[in-house]
Amino acid sequence: MLGARGGWRALRRCPSSIVSSSSFSSSFSSFSSSSSLPREQRAPAARLRVRQALGAREAAGEVQVQGWVRSIRSQKEVLFLHINDGSSLESLQVVADPSMESRDLTFGSAVEVRGKLVKSPHKMQNMELKAESIRVVGPCDTLSFPLKAKERHPLEYVRQFPHLRCRSNALGALLRIRSEATAAIHSFFQDHGYVHIHTPIITSNDCEGAGELFQIETSNETQKSAEKNHFFNVPAFLTVSGQLHLEVMAGAFTHVFTFGPTFRAENSQSRRHLAEFYMVEAELSFTESLQDIMQVMEDLFKTATSTVFSRCPRDVELFHKYVAPAQKGRLEQMLKNKFVTISYNEAVEILKQASQTFAFKPEWGCDLQTEHEKYLVQHCGEVPVFVINYPYDLKPFYMRDNEDGPQRTVAAVDLLVPGIGELCGGSLREERLPFLQSRLQRLGLADTYQWYLDLRKFGSVPHGGFGMGFERYLQYILGVDNIKDVIPFPRFPHSCLL
Amino acid sequence: MLGARGGWRALRRCPSSIVSSSSFSSSFSSFSSSSSLPREQRAPAARLRVRQALGAREAAGEVQVQGWVRSIRSQKEVLFLHINDGSSLESLQVVADPSMESRDLTFGSAVEVRGKLVKSPHKMQNMELKAESIRVVGPCDTLSFPLKAKERHPLEYVRQFPHLRCRSNALGALLRIRSEATAAIHSFFQDHGYVHIHTPIITSNDCEGAGELFQIETSNETQKSAEKNHFFNVPAFLTVSGQLHLEVMAGAFTHVFTFGPTFRAENSQSRRHLAEFYMVEAELSFTESLQDIMQVMEDLFKTATSTVFSRCPRDVELFHKYVAPAQKGRLEQMLKNKFVTISYNEAVEILKQASQTFAFKPEWGCDLQTEHEKYLVQHCGEVPVFVINYPYDLKPFYMRDNEDGPQRTVAAVDLLVPGIGELCGGSLREERLPFLQSRLQRLGLADTYQWYLDLRKFGSVPHGGFGMGFERYLQYILGVDNIKDVIPFPRFPHSCLL
Repeated sequence: MLGARGGWRALRRCPSSIVSSSSFSSSFSSFSSSSSLPREQRAPAARLRVRQALGAREAAGEVQVQGWVRSIRSQKEVLFLHINDGSSLESLQVVADPSMESRDLTFGSAVEVRGKLVKSPHKMQNMELKAESIRVVGPCDTLSFPLKAKERHPLEYVRQFPHLRCRSNALGALLRIRSEATAAIHSFFQDHGYVHIHTPIITSNDCEGAGELFQIETSNETQKSAEKNHFFNVPAFLTVSGQLHLEVMAGAFTHVFTFGPTFRAENSQSRRHLAEFYMVEAELSFTESLQDIMQVMEDLFKTATSTVFSRCPRDVELFHKYVAPAQKGRLEQMLKNKFVTISYNEAVEILKQASQTFAFKPEWGCDLQTEHEKYLVQHCGEVPVFVINYPYDLKPFYMRDNEDGPQRTVAAVDLLVPGIGELCGGSLREERLPFLQSRLQRLGLADTYQWYLDLRKFGSVPHGGFGMGFERYLQYILGVDNIKDVIPFPRFPHSCLL
Repeated sequence: MLGARGGWRALRRCPSSIVSSSSFSSSFSSFSSSSSLPREQRAPAARLRVRQALGAREAAGEVQVQGWVRSIRSQKEVLFLHINDGSSLESLQVVADPSMESRDLTFGSAVEVRGKLVKSPHKMQNMELKAESIRVVGPCDTLSFPLKAKERHPLEYVRQFPHLRCRSNALGALLRIRSEATAAIHSFFQDHGYVHIHTPIITSNDCEGAGELFQIETSNETQKSAEKNHFFNVPAFLTVSGQLHLEVMAGAFTHVFTFGPTFRAENSQSRRHLAEFYMVEAELSFTESLQDIMQVMEDLFKTATSTVFSRCPRDVELFHKYVAPAQKGRLEQMLKNKFVTISYNEAVEILKQASQTFAFKPEWGCDLQTEHEKYLVQHCGEVPVFVINYPYDLKPFYMRDNEDGPQRTVAAVDLLVPGIGELCGGSLREERLPFLQSRLQRLGLADTYQWYLDLRKFGSVPHGGFGMGFERYLQYILGVDNIKDVIPFPRFPHSCLL
């Protein structure tokens, strides 16, 4: 009824600036319509991703592979190319006639290769592509291209090029792993009956009670300094945690999780902090035991890690071979053993008895510093360590009073891991209305959190939850020193590139 | 080595304020340690979610179900309860002795029921629970609780209670569907070899070139009006689209997607707009055909919808029965047929020939208004309609010139759906360096987008992509009129509750 008429015409136009190294000209698309362009001269080739080509069981006739040239080696009788399309760390070897070489066929150029997929005579690879035609789709200005052939660029170097570093082996592997880890974490929770919740990014709450918030205004408002014309009528901030919103949902779905961006406006330049980072958070109703929460943390960590290791072994190997050589054995050991648990009381005792001198003297009632966390993890044998039952006064209002003395400790837990420090934090939440009410009243927050008190008035249940820093998780399992190298576009003080 | 000592003590304490209707006192936890509390008197019961209990194939001995009371009916010889824990729309019927009734056992209270799971004699349900004990874990102040037993509260009513509305049938079903749809969308892309990318939330770009941005400052900075002390050194905004960042990644991984929050500071109160909403975006390299992009849009839509319908049939049924009765048939029909495609040229012709009078006169070169979109969808038979090849001047700089006249049209596509209007938008991107360069220069943006031009200098490939509004998608498949009812915590002008 509604024909395609003139509309289709534009759909199949060949980009005029594309330089082709052969006389062969085709469309990438399998779509065929009444086009005004000349029809293809040859039968359409099966389009294969590099990963598919490399994993093929048998030779195949006319196939087409597209990607970027990672290496080029011209010999008298044969031209070797390696083509990568990001579907795997490994590139596909292309064997071509030297006549197919052209000025534009360089490292970094985008190409489309047609030919026959055959068993490779070399041990290093399973299959290779015998080229019948090579078309340079997009040339590369190699002189100004910051990545160079055959060089292993350090992570610090490629960090300068946030728009290009994903084309390096290390960042390519890392982002594939990140994608798999994301999927593994979602699957873990879905398999265990959790409902996924998109907790809000913009919020009028301040979950941690800290001053390190980003505030939001419309572009116009920031010009005025007046506070009366907020877009939302109230001051609004970027979320520091989805926990309070997850608690709302745990009162309906029992088990819920969220996995999204969170924000801190901390002015710290550190290899473990970002202004924008991802957090996995879960909340469980009908749980009176901190041990239940810790079990989920441990299961999540181990399941996700095993899944990632088995789904992208070559990508993970790159890090365990070149970035953090000892990491693999340590992680395998860790996956087999139960995480260690110590109480905060014990932690302080261990620190007090340490022969080491600390910059911050360990004292009951004081927060554990990075140096303390490091020592505790060492003391326990360089394994993940849960520290539980922290002093009441160190922790936010929503944590559950252990009643082991007048407001002495709360049912909180931090998971410390080697090389990183705090990876997860969690607690039982104060579900008892009178306890929560009096604590909020003392803090002058009872009005602000009336809705949160409501959750305790209407069918309150003992519950708890935790958050895991996703970037720190990736840093730990891969042994990556700097958090800026495990996120696609890092945001930190003085830097918001792209 | 590191014993549990005092630390464990707090883990299993029973909440002192919990009112128990029976003398039976147990822990929710399956964790057993050397606790200072009295050991359990009875064997531990198998804990079942309501969904598991309802789906059980056979009777089971000692089981434990936890949840919230959705109805209570006391007869002379028997007490009936319905317990819901959010794992399904359906509640589990509990049959108890009237002696188990108590003052606290009311609608909305949280309970733990132990008993035997038996085949139900009633046709309406498969299994029911014969209670041996009922413990009220958290009572409910029914007088002030805004949800009432046996009432079907309108969506507008429950919207007033963002912290409690998830306990209503409609919002419960909706958020389970949202969770399943999220999973289905992730699976679709993973199954097709796409790498998932977390595109940044905070950005120094402005993808659409619009003025409707939220700007970010640290809380302190907003007090000063000075612009010199930005946290990131440059003005920073909340993202309106992850597209440009995805294009970076499509230059390494060929196929990429993102699924996250995006923001508009538009001051519009509409049933289709939010200040914070979720967008699914994909970018495909080595694609010269808009049709390829449209095919992915259509496949994504149909696959996700079929998956959601088969995974949560009862939740979906609630909407198709009570909220939008005609929607089911229309959607089933839509899933079977190919989406219609018309060009912008054709669209304008159709509108010009319409007998209807429009507030905005249809004219080539003008944007399609809501009234126009509505008419076009009607004209095509109330089915999804792709409109392609829009005027060059209507669209952003990154869209690909069709070269069908001097800067006449670009290879853009919008997907319009009944009742909603624009659901998706996409395009081929201008991959030709000279075209992009001159357009950016005319706009005075060549310096700002030097990095984007770089992508065309180093192995550029023809590519394209699209974005789909996730809330509008949910509105459409469920027939929900107001977008505020398909997101857990809606943010819109003058409202940022919780």
